[in-house]
Amino acid sequence: MSFLSIITYTGIFVFALTGAFKARAHKMDVFGGLVVAFATAYGGGTLRDLLIGIRPVNWINDRFALLLVISGAIVSFLLKNNENRFKRTIFFTDAIGLGMFTAAGIEVALRYGVNDMYALIMGVITATFGGLIADIFCNQVPNLFKKGELYATVCAIGGGVYLLLKNTNLDNDIALAICIILVVALRIYSKRKRLTLPEI
Amino acid sequence: MSFLSIITYTGIFVFALTGAFKARAHKMDVFGGLVVAFATAYGGGTLRDLLIGIRPVNWINDRFALLLVISGAIVSFLLKNNENRFKRTIFFTDAIGLGMFTAAGIEVALRYGVNDMYALIMGVITATFGGLIADIFCNQVPNLFKKGELYATVCAIGGGVYLLLKNTNLDNDIALAICIILVVALRIYSKRKRLTLPEI
Amino acid sequence: MSFLSIITYTGIFVFALTGAFKARAHKMDVFGGLVVAFATAYGGGTLRDLLIGIRPVNWINDRFALLLVISGAIVSFLLKNNENRFKRTIFFTDAIGLGMFTAAGIEVALRYGVNDMYALIMGVITATFGGLIADIFCNQVPNLFKKGELYATVCAIGGGVYLLLKNTNLDNDIALAICIILVVALRIYSKRKRLTLPEI
Repeated sequence: MSFLSIITYTGIFVFALTGAFKARAHKMDVFGGLVVAFATAYGGGTLRDLLIGIRPVNWINDRFALLLVISGAIVSFLLKNNENRFKRTIFFTDAIGLGMFTAAGIEVALRYGVNDMYALIMGVITATFGGLIADIFCNQVPNLFKKGELYATVCAIGGGVYLLLKNTNLDNDIALAICIILVVALRIYSKRKRLTLPEI
Repeated sequence: MSFLSIITYTGIFVFALTGAFKARAHKMDVFGGLVVAFATAYGGGTLRDLLIGIRPVNWINDRFALLLVISGAIVSFLLKNNENRFKRTIFFTDAIGLGMFTAAGIEVALRYGVNDMYALIMGVITATFGGLIADIFCNQVPNLFKKGELYATVCAIGGGVYLLLKNTNLDNDIALAICIILVVALRIYSKRKRLTLPEI
Repeated sequence: MSFLSIITYTGIFVFALTGAFKARAHKMDVFGGLVVAFATAYGGGTLRDLLIGIRPVNWINDRFALLLVISGAIVSFLLKNNENRFKRTIFFTDAIGLGMFTAAGIEVALRYGVNDMYALIMGVITATFGGLIADIFCNQVPNLFKKGELYATVCAIGGGVYLLLKNTNLDNDIALAICIILVVALRIYSKRKRLTLPEI
């Protein structure tokens, strides 16, 4: 398994965990929890695949995907009473997942002939729209759109830098690492400084 | 028209009826009612088709589909003052539709090269996500996810048994009938015993 | 650029403007505003493309699309304190967009082998489902479904007349103009007379 796959699957696991926590906050049952976990982890990539026209969507027939989502739900179940203690860990792993998904989304889009501008958009969609779909399932205004933290913006910056680095002679794995580190750093910095986008 | 088609269209009609009732409960107008009825009846199959990559989706150009949904809406209109008297009938026909859609969804998925595990998931999506989309249109947390009745679980069990029976020498129509009977029986049993999934 | 393209892009711009206003009413940040503007402008056409099976969806790689949506958001920002003064203008341009999108949606559907009945449905979806998706993002019951103004109905009538005219010897641009004028006239008339569909 390549370095890329390892990080992708780590991101899937973390996003599934986040989704399961969200489902519990909305008092869903186990089935609802699994669907919200799956949607959080795979929703963004699914929308990207549908828009670009990749068929079937990437996770069809991927048994490992299902296993990861179920594991994420189980782990969230085991952490039931320690959620707050793990919040910092989840913030951190979520940021890593964010950077990874942005880069992975860009890669997939470029491979299917999408231009740079829209590949960046597809990267941001891959990273952030899973949470949006989960929010719609939970019947709340997507966090993504509300004035709050920098989330999609951070992905857009990380993805933009990744695209720039790809046009240099830099090794792709290094560009990937820089993208992830940048996203994590920006997430931490913006959270600490309480940076937000202005309201429209 | 085959036995399979007859039951499928019966399921469509019943789901359209359920959707129209839901739209009325949310005080929608006639157009909204038709869209919610259509979404309830065809939403699950549409999502399955999109995910697997069947194009165009199954109902495009199917005039009969439209006729059925409109009939469902009209019948719901005629039953306006007798809704409660028909609730038991609707529960029963809805359960039949559920079993049928699960099996039909599995069949379609298998035909397009989806493996057993994901064919089962596609079956459950076909049977249950129409109601989910209708709930999103009505701006409520999907019933499907809330602790309440066994709904998706029942489809998963019925679909699992159907997949097992398909690997035996049993005639396919008999396997289909067993799947439907099982789903109906489990729905009735779980409702009577107030069985639920635990919260996540 | 053809007459058709000019009107289409005008419609996109107007719908993006409407979307940005809606996002502001829900106190979203700039990113949320752009996404809701984009969804309002392109959501209907995107759903049509997905259902018919056009891939990638129409706006992928269209830099001009992005520019228009961003312009719409900026203009909405500049009109911040004059929103009410522009409401009449927006109602009018929105009606033009509605007529145009209906006809354009029908054209695209017919070109991909969809029959008349479903081409009309695709036209109505193209014109109205962008606003619906934006409403879902804003977590409100879609205006489209609530008893209120005639909106989808007006598109259906305009689109139906357009389809009839296409079967005559009439020049297509004239049929298009009649469709748009009809939709605008019906929108104004129904608004003034407070016409509504009955509840289901």
